[in-house]
Amino acid sequence: MHINVYLAGQIHDDWRTEIKQEAEKKKLPLSFFGPMENHDRSDNIGEEILGKQADPIAKDEAASQLNNLRTRLLMEKSDVVIAKFGESYKQWNSAMDASAAVTLGKPLILIRPKNLHHPLKELSERAQVTVETAEQAVKCLAYLFETD
Amino acid sequence: MHINVYLAGQIHDDWRTEIKQEAEKKKLPLSFFGPMENHDRSDNIGEEILGKQADPIAKDEAASQLNNLRTRLLMEKSDVVIAKFGESYKQWNSAMDASAAVTLGKPLILIRPKNLHHPLKELSERAQVTVETAEQAVKCLAYLFETD
Amino acid sequence: MHINVYLAGQIHDDWRTEIKQEAEKKKLPLSFFGPMENHDRSDNIGEEILGKQADPIAKDEAASQLNNLRTRLLMEKSDVVIAKFGESYKQWNSAMDASAAVTLGKPLILIRPKNLHHPLKELSERAQVTVETAEQAVKCLAYLFETD
Amino acid sequence: MHINVYLAGQIHDDWRTEIKQEAEKKKLPLSFFGPMENHDRSDNIGEEILGKQADPIAKDEAASQLNNLRTRLLMEKSDVVIAKFGESYKQWNSAMDASAAVTLGKPLILIRPKNLHHPLKELSERAQVTVETAEQAVKCLAYLFETD
Amino acid sequence: MHINVYLAGQIHDDWRTEIKQEAEKKKLPLSFFGPMENHDRSDNIGEEILGKQADPIAKDEAASQLNNLRTRLLMEKSDVVIAKFGESYKQWNSAMDASAAVTLGKPLILIRPKNLHHPLKELSERAQVTVETAEQAVKCLAYLFETD
Amino acid sequence: MHINVYLAGQIHDDWRTEIKQEAEKKKLPLSFFGPMENHDRSDNIGEEILGKQADPIAKDEAASQLNNLRTRLLMEKSDVVIAKFGESYKQWNSAMDASAAVTLGKPLILIRPKNLHHPLKELSERAQVTVETAEQAVKCLAYLFETD
Amino acid sequence: MHINVYLAGQIHDDWRTEIKQEAEKKKLPLSFFGPMENHDRSDNIGEEILGKQADPIAKDEAASQLNNLRTRLLMEKSDVVIAKFGESYKQWNSAMDASAAVTLGKPLILIRPKNLHHPLKELSERAQVTVETAEQAVKCLAYLFETD
Amino acid sequence: MHINVYLAGQIHDDWRTEIKQEAEKKKLPLSFFGPMENHDRSDNIGEEILGKQADPIAKDEAASQLNNLRTRLLMEKSDVVIAKFGESYKQWNSAMDASAAVTLGKPLILIRPKNLHHPLKELSERAQVTVETAEQAVKCLAYLFETD
Repeated sequence: MHINVYLAGQIHDDWRTEIKQEAEKKKLPLSFFGPMENHDRSDNIGEEILGKQADPIAKDEAASQLNNLRTRLLMEKSDVVIAKFGESYKQWNSAMDASAAVTLGKPLILIRPKNLHHPLKELSERAQVTVETAEQAVKCLAYLFETD
Repeated sequence: MHINVYLAGQIHDDWRTEIKQEAEKKKLPLSFFGPMENHDRSDNIGEEILGKQADPIAKDEAASQLNNLRTRLLMEKSDVVIAKFGESYKQWNSAMDASAAVTLGKPLILIRPKNLHHPLKELSERAQVTVETAEQAVKCLAYLFETD
Repeated sequence: MHINVYLAGQIHDDWRTEIKQEAEKKKLPLSFFGPMENHDRSDNIGEEILGKQADPIAKDEAASQLNNLRTRLLMEKSDVVIAKFGESYKQWNSAMDASAAVTLGKPLILIRPKNLHHPLKELSERAQVTVETAEQAVKCLAYLFETD
Repeated sequence: MHINVYLAGQIHDDWRTEIKQEAEKKKLPLSFFGPMENHDRSDNIGEEILGKQADPIAKDEAASQLNNLRTRLLMEKSDVVIAKFGESYKQWNSAMDASAAVTLGKPLILIRPKNLHHPLKELSERAQVTVETAEQAVKCLAYLFETD
Repeated sequence: MHINVYLAGQIHDDWRTEIKQEAEKKKLPLSFFGPMENHDRSDNIGEEILGKQADPIAKDEAASQLNNLRTRLLMEKSDVVIAKFGESYKQWNSAMDASAAVTLGKPLILIRPKNLHHPLKELSERAQVTVETAEQAVKCLAYLFETD
Repeated sequence: MHINVYLAGQIHDDWRTEIKQEAEKKKLPLSFFGPMENHDRSDNIGEEILGKQADPIAKDEAASQLNNLRTRLLMEKSDVVIAKFGESYKQWNSAMDASAAVTLGKPLILIRPKNLHHPLKELSERAQVTVETAEQAVKCLAYLFETD
Repeated sequence: MHINVYLAGQIHDDWRTEIKQEAEKKKLPLSFFGPMENHDRSDNIGEEILGKQADPIAKDEAASQLNNLRTRLLMEKSDVVIAKFGESYKQWNSAMDASAAVTLGKPLILIRPKNLHHPLKELSERAQVTVETAEQAVKCLAYLFETD
Repeated sequence: MHINVYLAGQIHDDWRTEIKQEAEKKKLPLSFFGPMENHDRSDNIGEEILGKQADPIAKDEAASQLNNLRTRLLMEKSDVVIAKFGESYKQWNSAMDASAAVTLGKPLILIRPKNLHHPLKELSERAQVTVETAEQAVKCLAYLFETD
């Protein structure tokens, strides 16, 4: 059995790499998908494809159409979603993607530092598991394949 | 036709009152639902019902179970969701509830100050309408009942 | 049993009035819903609520957000959809609403002049019934309540 | 990850070829599906299989049964739908297929010349992205696979 | 709690009356719905509304569009379906309606004489209960409201 | 807003009365539904309606058809499910009904004595809230209606 | 694209062979599934696995559990359903399977001799296409793969 | 056609091995999935990944999050579920998983010793087939692939 994993969350550091490396070490049959990780390109993709927009809001609207196209389609094809929250950034689209996963019935693994528990308590309650590190998240996935 | 409206979002100020007053002025056939607005009680409701918990995380987990019970049940019975974002607070549960509404196929009206457009761009794109004031949100609902 | 009927289609003439009058004559337990029938207001509603937009496309986008909010919410609460096509206008949103009804599993009654059969053949095939006049459409609804 | 794309819309010119060529240039892992592109055969397929029908309406009904069989089945197996609108033809079945995609929760990429924005505004608002050229539509799909 | 009951099955004798009388005797809070019971009208309703059709098959097609409109809409609004099979008639639309109920997740109560068990065995297995008389079917519904 | 509550679980003692009394004391707008609480009748209802069965297994099968008819129909019309587990009895149908509620997306409130936590841990994890007394369960429901 | 086809209907003659041969002649990428075609085994499968049953009704019940297990599982994995009706046999399970397909949203191709149109009119109306021969049914499937 | 089978139920003895061996003997195209069968690890997996918990209830909660992650994800990817009940243990999570399968529309094969029929009667009624031995369960699956 092969499992598709969507990695939702901020794109300012390379936490996805750590997840992928842990999975590779364990030789797990996983494929990973996620948002565009080049932050500038993610912000500019609307104008890159559709051309110069009227103002910053129109530029943002255009970019978000492309980013949401990607998220909807790749999450739909995934079996489980991992969402990571950190200290910085508003991360409202991380919360949006995590909640979409839960509402679609896809199990959510939430990664967050312990001190963020209070503002994330409702999302954590809806997640299937809440962990603190990428390594723990990969152990959750490894458990799917272990037999003893 | 009577419409149920769920008012998602932060509970630190009384933005819901303004919505309700605008709706009353227009005599719209709307009922409003939402989270517990007493912030302390919302944080303590877990221990209030289930008793003293082992630590702050367990206390938060217990409270969020009750808050999510309320949100799930009342949102399920609502026809449309209004979510408000402001300058303060992390508002991750606001984003969670707004995204749940969209994923359940319930139209979302997003209220946010213009300057928050960038971090909210993906959520705004999935909303049915994005406005800046409570008055505008009520006008959106009023339009449902107008015939000329 | 009370039935809610959504009247999709163009808003340039008053075909909805004829439907409602026929239903009233037969004293059928029906409630009718539909789009904003004031054509200018339907085109301007975005700017009316959200303020002046940057260009005609942004104005159209804003108006369609409000019009689609109305259609989604009222169609969701309806049991059956009647869509009327005529000789004039492109009527792409009529086709959009009719198809949404079919895909949502709501029975569609299509009204069209006989000579439009060819371009409407695929939509007609997905409709539950295709008729030529408002009076026939109301007879279809009356049949729901008759016992001999 | 392999993506299936349904190409809805008129069958009078070969716009689908341009899409496929752009995708091939970029070596994207896409498969394309769509309606019968031989216009005469699409109109005659009912009589071709079921034999001579009583009148032109019955002939159209028979043809549309086969065309809708094809559309329903191939769209169901597709992950994303591209619909193209042009200046000519009524294109009501294009609008029907585009709306079916949206209602089924499949992301829709709408291609239309800028000057058609007004009559397509409600459909454009429900689409995930609206573009003007086949090249832009393919760039939207390419973005799904890019990582920086 | 009020329960809506759809009475599927043949319309050649008045078995529905017996059901309704039994329910009335027990003063159960039930509403009953079902197909047009005037057999001739059921066969002719297509031509009655749409006018003379080209041949008997077209006449049947037209009638069945109206009959299915009625069945779909009334069954959708019902909580439970009773289907009766007897010795006479092919009763394929009875089997169709009974199976639609099961597939929609609505509990099916099947009434059939004991000697028809073999040809109905697969349908009986998918029914929630199989009984032999109208009185037994009503007792099943009465049980929903009894507390001791 | 009125809320329907299904009370799943064993029928050997009158725990449902306590729930109803607590709700009445608080004047909550709740309606309660549940299984037949007369244990003998619940076991005999199959033979009561369908007549003497061939053996105890056939008698059980007949009774369970009626009991499941009741559970499916009443749970479908409920907004929230309370399931109670105690020290005695196997309570497999309690677990079945509780799990059906969760899988249908209806929030589950689980009541169990603390010492049963281990064998109920997986069900407790899927419940929205786990409490130890009927009074606590009613407080959870009361919280839905409180505003400060 | 590979298509799975479920062949519902009576198992007294070998109409499925003709379908498969026509498909093979055209080299269509189709896989076919269907019920147990050995009629005696289909009737006895319950006792074959579960042992001697108490009476003919219990034997039928047991057999139908196995036959329905097969039908549900194989139809769920199919993209399109072909159902054949003939002059003989009651064929209520054929109607049941055909209706389940329609209600599940899977396109139905109905094969029936012309003279059976009247009793099958409601089922024919819900089918995507109605044909008279196996060869015609295969032509419908071939059309899915043809491009001009 | 390849079928995925989820083996729900207690993990105290090796009944799954017998199922797998029977399937292998018959060379059936089946893949089997199920819970962690190492009982101690299943109880400790929460603390293994998340670290020491505050008390036994928190330890159980953590373990059940991982166990339910596994069950939800693997059951979702399975076509049919086999659940086994025995004389020992409470087996409430077996009942939970069996009921989840039924509610998700996945056919359930229930294995239980005959003498457990009474407490399992409601679950047995919702199962597609109830058998007494692993060998019988595998025969049910074998029947899916047999043609005469």
